[in-house]
Amino acid sequence: MKHLLEKVLSSKQVFRGRYLKVEQDQVQAPDGKTYVREYILHPGAAMMIPLLSNEKVVMVHQYRHAVKQVFLEFPAGKRDRGEETLLTARRELREETGYEAKDWKFLTTIHPVIGYSNEHIDLFLARDLTAAPQQLDHGEFLEVVEVSPDELMKFVREGKVTDVKTQIGAFWLDKILHGEWN
Amino acid sequence: MKHLLEKVLSSKQVFRGRYLKVEQDQVQAPDGKTYVREYILHPGAAMMIPLLSNEKVVMVHQYRHAVKQVFLEFPAGKRDRGEETLLTARRELREETGYEAKDWKFLTTIHPVIGYSNEHIDLFLARDLTAAPQQLDHGEFLEVVEVSPDELMKFVREGKVTDVKTQIGAFWLDKILHGEWN
Repeated sequence: MKHLLEKVLSSKQVFRGRYLKVEQDQVQAPDGKTYVREYILHPGAAMMIPLLSNEKVVMVHQYRHAVKQVFLEFPAGKRDRGEETLLTARRELREETGYEAKDWKFLTTIHPVIGYSNEHIDLFLARDLTAAPQQLDHGEFLEVVEVSPDELMKFVREGKVTDVKTQIGAFWLDKILHGEWN
Repeated sequence: MKHLLEKVLSSKQVFRGRYLKVEQDQVQAPDGKTYVREYILHPGAAMMIPLLSNEKVVMVHQYRHAVKQVFLEFPAGKRDRGEETLLTARRELREETGYEAKDWKFLTTIHPVIGYSNEHIDLFLARDLTAAPQQLDHGEFLEVVEVSPDELMKFVREGKVTDVKTQIGAFWLDKILHGEWN
């Protein structure tokens, strides 16, 4: 794959907004020419599939202003600086839903925006849940719901779960619950 | 879901780079307070699963500078202004792989970055393929490969296909080829 690589010639931050940081690099491409590449700098994130003993999953309804729609999502959030994503997952589960989990299993890492962000999301399965009070961040508004895995797959198929991390979580859960993946 | 909505108070473009545009909105949230929301303005995109008569899928290896890795991906690309995504899909399939398809089926729409981009990607299944010359864009470098659906699912499970649109395409193809979804 080495013949596809690009070499960084220079790198600078060209925008720093309230939340978003944009990096602009000059690169030397495989044809020897110089090109500009631009992307968002992101600290990474964690998402978890909280599976209750009644076989339902804990999810959230959240309005997402960028798309101007309410989404059905698995709980997730950005890493604090230097934080391991398992800690991020524990924190976000507690903050967004009030649940704590004793049993955590790492599933996979995904890259949601390879064209223009370095974001990665680590996905976990969270079991052995106990309820505690929800502790939302300032400016965060969401509603906790319980969904059965069958309903969730129906929503995916019908185009009602379009958030990628959530849809990928649904497919992994489907494989795990059917005993195809462990 | 109305109680989760946010009202736009003002909206301005705060960054316009070589490729990326950032919008910053002031919104009124459900608690009546004002918050800042920032996101990338994106024209939307199309991705297709090109299924050959030998049951393999046509994919591309592409270096993605934002993540600094080579990814195994389904062919995809951004919409030209006002273009229907089926046209985008036809164009990108031809440009990136050289294939043309007679049989196109819309599968679903996904949102890869609901936290900070309005991007959506329409996913298509492309069958009845014929080969023609590849016509890459300026500054685009990629390598076409054929992969069997079983191999692809193995790569997903092993964390070797981390690009979300591609992983979601793999799961949809898996459901379709097993006759669970049509």
